[in-house]
Order: sequence, then C-alpha cells, then structure tokens
Amino acid sequence: MAVNFPSIDPAQLHPVAGVTLGWAEAHIRKPNRKDLLVISVDESASVSGVFTLNRFCAAPVTVCREHLANVRAGGKGIRALVINTGNANAGTGEPGMANTRATCDALAKLAGIEPSQVLPFSTGVILEPLPIDRLVAGLPAALANRKADNWYDAAQAIMTTDTLPKAVSRQIDVDGHTITFTGISKGAGMIKPNMATMLGFLAFDANVAQPVLDELVKYVADRSFNCVTIDGDTSTNDSFILIASGQSSLPAITSTDSPAYAALRDAVTEVSQTLSQLIVRDGEGATKFMTIQVEGGKDVAECRQIAYAIGHSPLVKTAFYASDPNLGRILAAIGYAGVTDLDVGKIDLYLDDVLVAKAGGRNPDYQEEDGQRVMKKSEILIRVVLGRGNAEATVWTCDLSHDYVSINADYRS
Amino acid sequence: MAVNFPSIDPAQLHPVAGVTLGWAEAHIRKPNRKDLLVISVDESASVSGVFTLNRFCAAPVTVCREHLANVRAGGKGIRALVINTGNANAGTGEPGMANTRATCDALAKLAGIEPSQVLPFSTGVILEPLPIDRLVAGLPAALANRKADNWYDAAQAIMTTDTLPKAVSRQIDVDGHTITFTGISKGAGMIKPNMATMLGFLAFDANVAQPVLDELVKYVADRSFNCVTIDGDTSTNDSFILIASGQSSLPAITSTDSPAYAALRDAVTEVSQTLSQLIVRDGEGATKFMTIQVEGGKDVAECRQIAYAIGHSPLVKTAFYASDPNLGRILAAIGYAGVTDLDVGKIDLYLDDVLVAKAGGRNPDYQEEDGQRVMKKSEILIRVVLGRGNAEATVWTCDLSHDYVSINADYRS
Repeated sequence: MAVNFPSIDPAQLHPVAGVTLGWAEAHIRKPNRKDLLVISVDESASVSGVFTLNRFCAAPVTVCREHLANVRAGGKGIRALVINTGNANAGTGEPGMANTRATCDALAKLAGIEPSQVLPFSTGVILEPLPIDRLVAGLPAALANRKADNWYDAAQAIMTTDTLPKAVSRQIDVDGHTITFTGISKGAGMIKPNMATMLGFLAFDANVAQPVLDELVKYVADRSFNCVTIDGDTSTNDSFILIASGQSSLPAITSTDSPAYAALRDAVTEVSQTLSQLIVRDGEGATKFMTIQVEGGKDVAECRQIAYAIGHSPLVKTAFYASDPNLGRILAAIGYAGVTDLDVGKIDLYLDDVLVAKAGGRNPDYQEEDGQRVMKKSEILIRVVLGRGNAEATVWTCDLSHDYVSINADYRS
Repeated sequence: MAVNFPSIDPAQLHPVAGVTLGWAEAHIRKPNRKDLLVISVDESASVSGVFTLNRFCAAPVTVCREHLANVRAGGKGIRALVINTGNANAGTGEPGMANTRATCDALAKLAGIEPSQVLPFSTGVILEPLPIDRLVAGLPAALANRKADNWYDAAQAIMTTDTLPKAVSRQIDVDGHTITFTGISKGAGMIKPNMATMLGFLAFDANVAQPVLDELVKYVADRSFNCVTIDGDTSTNDSFILIASGQSSLPAITSTDSPAYAALRDAVTEVSQTLSQLIVRDGEGATKFMTIQVEGGKDVAECRQIAYAIGHSPLVKTAFYASDPNLGRILAAIGYAGVTDLDVGKIDLYLDDVLVAKAGGRNPDYQEEDGQRVMKKSEILIRVVLGRGNAEATVWTCDLSHDYVSINADYRS
C-alpha cells in the first residue's frame, strides 16, 4: 500500500569502498527474520550522527552519543555499527544501559576493536528487556557474512513495521573523482520532527574531516529526516548516521568552503531526502504523499511550526484519506499552530495550483471540483503563503487511514 | 458507541429563572434537523465567556468578543445568544463578518434589543459561506417557541457530529437559597486545549457582578473545557459562556472572597467538568474514556504539556483502542513533550493502581497481565509522577478507533 514507492533493484545499490555489511537472524523478537545488522567501516572512515531529542531516549542513543564524543575528544575512530530490531531497549533503565554496553563489548571482542569504537542502535517495542543473550549469540553470524554488496539485505534487516526495504544509491563526479553514496533507512510509524523510530545510515567514500562531517550531518538532517512526519510521535531511538569512508582518491575535505564540499553536501542532502521520503511513502496505512510547503514566514521556525501543525492534524489527514476537499481544516491547523501574531487576513492557501483561500477567506473563484480533482491524486502539494517575510520550510507527510489504526492496534500481536 | 454516557432525562433539566430557549429547523446545511437556537436572558443577567485561541477564529467569535467588550465598557447587557450548526462561518473573510453582523441585526430587530446585545455562535464546516438568508428566515420560529424548559431540545439543536445531546443540571443550597445550574455542550471532534468546536452554555440563577463572572469563567474553563482533548485539533469556533441570570434571592456576588462565591464556583466547575467530559465520552469513535493525571511537576504548565502529549499521541490512543498494554508509547510521549530538563530517571507511571514503570524503567514487579486487566476497562486512569515538584494537572481524552477515521473521512458527505 506504499505511495508511489520506487522499485529498488539490489544490483543498483553500489558498494561503498571501506564499508561492509552483515546480517543475522538472531530471534530478537520473532524467529526467521533478519533482525541483526553489523556495519563495519575501515580505519580511514569518519562517522557522525544526530539523534532523537526525546528525553526518554533509548540506552543505545545515550551510548552512541558517548562514543561519538569520545572520538571528538581524540579517542579511536568508530569501526562498527550494530543494529537490532524487535526491541527498542528504551524505558529499560539501568539494565538497558548494561545490555547496550554488553552488546558493544561482545562485538568489540569479536572484531578486535575497543567497545568505544562501536555505535549501537535498537528499534522495536519500548519498555521490554533486550534479549541480550540472543543478540550476542547472533553476532558471529552477522560478522561472518559481511559483504560490500549487502546493502539490500541490510535494508531488510532493519525493518520493523516497514512493508518495504528502503535504500538509495547515487554516484556523482567531483573534480574528476567518482563519489559513491549508498544509504538505507527504516521507519513507518512514530515519525515526527527531530526524527522518530527512524533510522538512517548513509555511507559515501569521500574523506571528510570529523568537524566537517559533524556540521554536514546536522545540515542534512534538518533538510531531510527532520522534515517528515507520519503521526507526530517522536521516537526514543531516532538516529541518522553519516559515514565518510575516506577511500576515494578525492583529496580530503577539511573545510565547508570548497566547491567539492558543496557538491558532496548537495548529494548527501538529496540522497537523505529520498531516504526520508521513502519512510513517508511507506508510512503506516499511507495512501497519499503530501508535501507541505509554508512560504512567506518571518523565520524558518514559524514556517516549520505551521507545516507540522498541518501535517499532524488528524482531521486534515483523514480528509486527505477520503479525498474530501474539506480544506477549512487546513486553515484551522494554521490558526492553532501557535504563531501568536499571525495575521490570517494575509494568508493564501493553494492545493497544487488551485488557489483555495485568498487573504484568509475562501477564494471567490474557487470551485469545489478543482479541489476535488487535486485531492484524488496520490501526490499533493499543500502550499501556504503567509505574506509576512521571506522564510520557508517544507514537511513531508502522509494521510491517516483505517490501516494506520489497524497496524497500530495490532503492532505487538 | 459513547463511553459510559449517562442517560439524560429531559424532565431533570431544571429551568433557570430568567432564561428561555427556542429552536428552529432552518435548513442551514441539511433539512429536517434542529440547527438554530436562540437563548434569551432577562435584563438582570450577567454574561461572560472565553473563546478559542485559534488565529483563524470564526467571525462569530470575533463579534462575541466585541460585544462582551462593549458590555464591560458600560454598554447595554447581553440579552440573547444565537447559535447555528451546519456551518462554522470560519475562513470566510469579510463576507463572513458581514453575515454574522446581519445575524445579530436581524435578531435584535425581532427581539427589540440592540445588535450589540446579541452573542452569535456558529459550528460546522469551515470555509463555506454561511447561508444567511435561511438563518434569518428561521429566527422568528426560534423566538416563537422559546420556553424555560427547552434545555433538552436546545442540547439537540447545537449537535454536529455528536451522537447524543449533552446536558447537565444541578441544584445546590447557598446560604439557604436554592441555586439552579443547567448547561448544554456540544463537540465530538476537533477537540483540544483551549477548546475546540466545542460549545458550552451554562446558566445559573445567582446574581453575579460582571467582573466576578469574568474571573469565574476563566477559572472554570481552565478546569473543564480546557482539559479535554479528542484529536488535538483546536477549532476556530470554541466558546464557553456563563450566564448568571440574577433572579435568585441570594444577595448579589460582588467579590470572589465570600463563601457564597466559593460554593457557586465549585458547583459551576463541577457542572462544567461534567459537560466537558460528556464531549469526550461522545468523542468521535471513542470506546474508552481516559483520565491523564500528571503529578509532581515543577508547575502546572509542564504537567499539562505532558498530559496533552500523552493525550494526543495517535500511538497511545490506538494502543488503548486495542486494549494492548504497549505502555512504552506513553513513556515516549512523556519524553517528547518538550520539557527539556526532565529527568526521566525519576518518573513513575501507573495504569490505575498498577505501577508499570518505576524510576524511568520497567517496574520489575510489573506483569503484563496486570496491565492487560486495566486496559480492558472502559474508564482508565493514566497517572504519571514526575518527582520534581508539587504541581499537577489532569486531562481527559478518549482512544483512537477505526470509527474516528470513518467519521472524519465522511463528515461532509
């Protein structure tokens, strides 16, 4: 039921030099499914990440932050990522932390690295103890089948309620050097600003200095994974990781000023946007993909605030599910978004090219048939023009259907 | 499908001296339904109200604010309320304002009062022109059938997607004088903090000075209509109106210091809580009624913020619909509520009497059967103890079911 989800050919997912991936069926929650993934990176790699702002962040998120801080403080570089599905290891208190550390210890021992060189990730049910014994028992198999061209299997190994594996690959030329970008993502519910049980891992083979990569990951997240919402629930486990494997012949990128940096930045942004949009396209129960573009704001923050109010409104989302141009619900959402000095008399609302509301009221030329025509499409642009400045923001979301309720009423069973 | 909705006996809705109510079938949107209500109050009455904070507030909300401001500035008192359903007259720009003024003018002329003595209310679909001719044509019939014991019919006349009329009546003794309170409310979706297309009208026969009534209405709204949420959508038209008809033999209440004021305040609060809870019990598609109580906060604002994050979470609401004790979703909602310095290691979570999470992690003694037992009930208390202060707040909400999606996907058809 995913919305215009592109067909992904495993053979088109290019290996990224210096990165190998191996999976196992560890029976974390259910038997006979890939639920454990190890990503190994060579010593030449830089790794950076951004994580959920949820105060109830999961144990692995806390440990990732520690281990990345250790690298920034001069410690040894990250050499492995380990991801389990089926259990989020969140709301698990001290035993949860101990289990995450035990995961890193076990992988480090098997791989001959230090525990601080491992980044751990978990996704799945919250508030249940991580079955650490089964996880650790699965690690040798995952390490053993590591391959550079395992990206499609890796995308499968991190799925939870996802109906389709999510992966994207690109190659671009930078100053005569081919740079390869390949990434995977997962997530279908509990998706909202500041990420969700949304995981994204994107590797490329350029050599990027740690401080530059740290800046790049934030820049990119704000334009991709932080712009999607399915149900407004921000997860405890969101993580987006960039790996610059450092194996390309392109000279090292040590500042954000060069044209080469700009080329890499734009490519990483595009790949990340696609990865994050795949999450929305496969949103739980989604039948429509909506782009919400808010323009003419005083600042980006207020544009995002309004875009998210629209994107989170169950009334807006059910109207889109029904293809019912009950568009006053969008105005209501704009009105309660919390921009207290908003002059609604200046607001225009477009649905694709159709001007629905003009200067805060119904456009006299608006015909319900025109709204209906757009609502029936599977990809819809909602454009709000605030008329009070030059800032803008975009959010991607999906509709709210019967299937969303079914999926979330049944998720654990 | 309403949740433990009490049976309402029209004969038990006491008239309030000095208040009469008359309805009409004006065919605002659909034929053969009560959709127009006039409430007349005697000259002795004080009237006050609170309204939606939605920036896209409807034309009648703007006019109500003007007319109440006029009274406070020494203008003539409010003598009539007029309410139409079927059309919210919101997102209608200048023509919407003109239609609201025309409504007040027409009623004032028929009733022999000034337009500024009329408070107008509308509820229904947003962004469509108010059929002012049909509304005005219905006014004589509504005026003609005004009666003091028309409260049940009045409750029917303000329904939109409500499945049941909502009314409550009480009598208490204050200093040897019987005071009668009768109120009606409507609303089933687009319900959230700061009210929703939620209308509440509560009359009582005490004599209360305008400034005291102005203070009372805010006090009560913050403990009743501002504590309910169904879907997190704040409407353009929310209004809660208190009428003190001034016909009781109880001496006039001119300050908030007296025991008589305290008795009235508590009674008005109780009746308003019941009226607002009826809205949740009849929430669109509701199968469960949940009380979310957040305690031990630094201030009431943060307790409300967390209570609303839980109450708005589609994941929490679908889990309750399914009676699935997937309670980590509640922790996730607490974590993303936006209380940035929250120490999750101090948080306890109870479901009724069952301690689910202790000090931020799963309570070792918690058994899933215990959670399951509570989840199967139709009335559930979610209690969160923050452990950082003495403030508390309560919010009432319902679950998110298949029927919610059906109702909102089909509302206009």
